[in-house]
Amino acid sequence: MEILENKSISCVKGFRAAAVSAGLKKGGKLDMGLVVSDVPAVAAGVFTTNIVKAAPVQIDMKHIKNKTTRAFVINSGNANACTGQQGLDDAESETAKVASALGFSSDEVLAYSTGVIGVPLPMDKINAGIDNCLDSLRDGGDDLAKAIMTTDTKEKSIYLRMQLSGKDVDICGIAKGSGMIHPNMGTMLSFVATDCNITKEMLTRIQKDVTAGTFNMVTVDGDTSTNDSATIIANGEAGNTLIDRPDTQDYECFSEAVYYVTEFLSKAIAADGEGATRFIEVYVYGADDINQARTLARSVAGSSLVKAAMHGADANWGRVLCAMGYSGAQFDQNKVDVSFESEAGSIDVFLKGVPLKFDEEQASEILTKDSIRISVNLNSGEAQAKSWGCDLTEEYVKINGDYRS
Amino acid sequence: MEILENKSISCVKGFRAAAVSAGLKKGGKLDMGLVVSDVPAVAAGVFTTNIVKAAPVQIDMKHIKNKTTRAFVINSGNANACTGQQGLDDAESETAKVASALGFSSDEVLAYSTGVIGVPLPMDKINAGIDNCLDSLRDGGDDLAKAIMTTDTKEKSIYLRMQLSGKDVDICGIAKGSGMIHPNMGTMLSFVATDCNITKEMLTRIQKDVTAGTFNMVTVDGDTSTNDSATIIANGEAGNTLIDRPDTQDYECFSEAVYYVTEFLSKAIAADGEGATRFIEVYVYGADDINQARTLARSVAGSSLVKAAMHGADANWGRVLCAMGYSGAQFDQNKVDVSFESEAGSIDVFLKGVPLKFDEEQASEILTKDSIRISVNLNSGEAQAKSWGCDLTEEYVKINGDYRS
Repeated sequence: MEILENKSISCVKGFRAAAVSAGLKKGGKLDMGLVVSDVPAVAAGVFTTNIVKAAPVQIDMKHIKNKTTRAFVINSGNANACTGQQGLDDAESETAKVASALGFSSDEVLAYSTGVIGVPLPMDKINAGIDNCLDSLRDGGDDLAKAIMTTDTKEKSIYLRMQLSGKDVDICGIAKGSGMIHPNMGTMLSFVATDCNITKEMLTRIQKDVTAGTFNMVTVDGDTSTNDSATIIANGEAGNTLIDRPDTQDYECFSEAVYYVTEFLSKAIAADGEGATRFIEVYVYGADDINQARTLARSVAGSSLVKAAMHGADANWGRVLCAMGYSGAQFDQNKVDVSFESEAGSIDVFLKGVPLKFDEEQASEILTKDSIRISVNLNSGEAQAKSWGCDLTEEYVKINGDYRS
Repeated sequence: MEILENKSISCVKGFRAAAVSAGLKKGGKLDMGLVVSDVPAVAAGVFTTNIVKAAPVQIDMKHIKNKTTRAFVINSGNANACTGQQGLDDAESETAKVASALGFSSDEVLAYSTGVIGVPLPMDKINAGIDNCLDSLRDGGDDLAKAIMTTDTKEKSIYLRMQLSGKDVDICGIAKGSGMIHPNMGTMLSFVATDCNITKEMLTRIQKDVTAGTFNMVTVDGDTSTNDSATIIANGEAGNTLIDRPDTQDYECFSEAVYYVTEFLSKAIAADGEGATRFIEVYVYGADDINQARTLARSVAGSSLVKAAMHGADANWGRVLCAMGYSGAQFDQNKVDVSFESEAGSIDVFLKGVPLKFDEEQASEILTKDSIRISVNLNSGEAQAKSWGCDLTEEYVKINGDYRS
C-alpha cells in the first residue's frame, strides 16, 4: 500500500470529476462538483441519524438502495435542509438532470448539499452549475475537494494504491468538515472512489465497519447535522478478482486501505475544526469492550471544557475525568490513569484514581504543541478506541456568531 | 406569597449562618460558609449523576438518609473531587468537626465543595475556616451566597414568605452556577432553607418534582459535574400544621413556593453563565408529553451553535431545528413552528415545517436584547417545558482556557 501525491478522484480508473463555480458562494469560489463513473458501479453510504434530514439525504437514502450507482452531484453554500417539499423536488430535479444528460437512471445519481439551512436551492444557478460540470467533466475535478468546503480552511484528500490479485487498485478520498465545538455538529461530507472490483454487499459491510471507528469518532452517530453523508463508490475497473466474501486476504487488505483513508480524513476534519489551533486525539485503552472505549473517548474529545483547557495549554485532567463520568459509560475511577502527550514528551497526571504531582511547566510545554494526545488507561480489559477533536477558541465563537451573513 | 428584600438564610426562623474567608480563594475573598438549624430539621437532596462523584457528594449521599439534618458546611475554591481516599477522609473530618462543636451527630452534617478538581483540601485552612464560621454564626451569614461563588459574577438568592394554617412560613434559597457552555457542565450548588413544618417524605417528594422542572433544565440530569448538589432543609419553626400528605392545599401551596424559588435560582444561574451577555429561554409547547418537551428544550438551549448564533444576534433557526433533530426525541418537523421573542417584539421564522421570509433587521433588533426566548410549537399535544441557557462568547473561552491559574 502506497500513498500517492495525486489527490484527484478523476485519477482513479473509470472516474471523471468536475468542480465549478455556480455562484452559490460569494466571490466566484468553487461551490459545485460532479463525480461520474464511466461504467456501472456499486456504492455504499452512511447518512445522518438526525431526525431532521436534509432533502438530498432523504433522496439519497432511497437511491443508495439501487444496485448500481453512477454519479454524485454536490454543492456547497446551501444545505437544502428544512426546505419542505420544494427541497425534495429540487434534489430530485438535480439527480434527474444529471441522469438525463449522461444516460443514467435517476436513482443511479446521488445529491449532496452543505451550507446554510432553510434557504431553497437557487435552481437557476444549480442547473447552470450542472451544465458547467458536465462540460468540464473531461479535464476537471482536481479542485473537487475545494468545491465542497464551507468554513474549512484546508482541502482534505488522500490517494492510496495497493495491489490485489496482481492488479493496481486505487482509492481516492475527499472530505469536508468543520464546525467542531461538538465533534458532532458540523456537516461532514466524505466521498471515496475506488476502482476495486467488489460486490455492493461487501462494500456496504466495509463502509459500516470503518465508519464506526473513524467518521463516527469525529461525527457522533445519533448526534449529527442535518446533512452528514459518507459515501463510497467502486467501479471494478482495476480488474482485480471480485471481492465477494469477507474471509479473504483481499477483503482484509482492501478493508484496511479504506480504513486508512477514512481515518486520515477524520483526523483532517478534526484538525481543521472551526477556529481550531490544536488537534486533539483522545486514546482510551484497557477498556472492557470497544463500545465503552468509544463512548469515553468521544465524551472527552467532545467536552467543551476539555477543549477550552487544551486551548489554554492547561493540564486540567479533572475535566477529562468529569467528561468520562457523564459519558454514560461505566468504569472504575480508582483504576484510571491519565497522561498527556505531544512531540515535546509525555506526562502522567493521574494514576489509579489518584492525582500525581507534576511539573506544570513541563505539562505546559507538552500542551502548547499543535497536536496533543490525551491517553486514558482504564486498566480493566483489552479494548481501545481513539476519538479526534480540536481545541475551543475565541475564533470559533466569532465564526459561529454570524455564519449566515 | 410575597417576595422579601431580605435574602439571608439566617433570617429564616431557627437558622443561623456564617460566611468567612478561609484563604482557599486568592485575595481574602469569602470562600467558606456554614448553615445551622437550632433544632433538628429534615432535609432532602439531589446529587450529581456523574459517575465521578466528588468526595463530599459521596459522603452527603449517605448522610442525607439520616432522619434529621442540622448543618451544611460549604467551601468554594476547591472541589475535593478526584482526590481518592484522602478526599473522603477530609470530607468526613469536616462533618465530624462541625458535629462535635455543635453537639450533633456526624451524619446530621452535610459537606459541599466547589472549585478546582483534583487538589486535596488544605485541611489546616478548612479547619480554621470552620472555627471562624462557628465564631461568627450568631451575626453572620448575609454573605453566604457570595462565599459559594466560583466564576459567578453575581450572588443568587431569593426570599419568599407565605401563610400556611395562619402562620408565616419563610423560604430562602441561594445558589451558585456558571460554567455554562453546556448548561450541564458547571458545578451547581443550591441551598434552600425553610421554617416550614413538613415531613422528610413530603420534602423529598417536592424536591424531586421541582428539580426535574427547574435545576435539571439548566443542569441536565445524567450529564452533570462531579459536585452538583441541591439541598433543601426544613426545621418546622414556623409552627404551621404539619404537611404530611400530598393531597392538601398546604402541600400544593408550599410546593409552588419551592418551585418558584428553584426556578428563580435556575434562571439566575443561566443568566450568569461564564462569559454570558445574554439570557436564553427555550420554550417548547404543543408537545405530546413532558419528557419530549424537556428533551427538546434542553437540546436547543444546550446547543453550542444555537448559543453562538444568539451571541451574534443571528436568527439562525436552522440550528434550532438541527438541535431538536439530534436530541433523541421524536417529532414531526412538518408541524413545527419556531419564533424568537424579546422585549423588542416577536418574530415568526418557521411555520409548519416551512421557512418564513422575515425581516432580518427586525429579527436582529429582537435578538440584541439581554433576554431572549426561543419558542417552539410542536402542534401535537398539550405538554410544555422551559429550559434556560445563555449565549456562547469569546469570553467563555478565555475563562475556561486557563481556569486553574
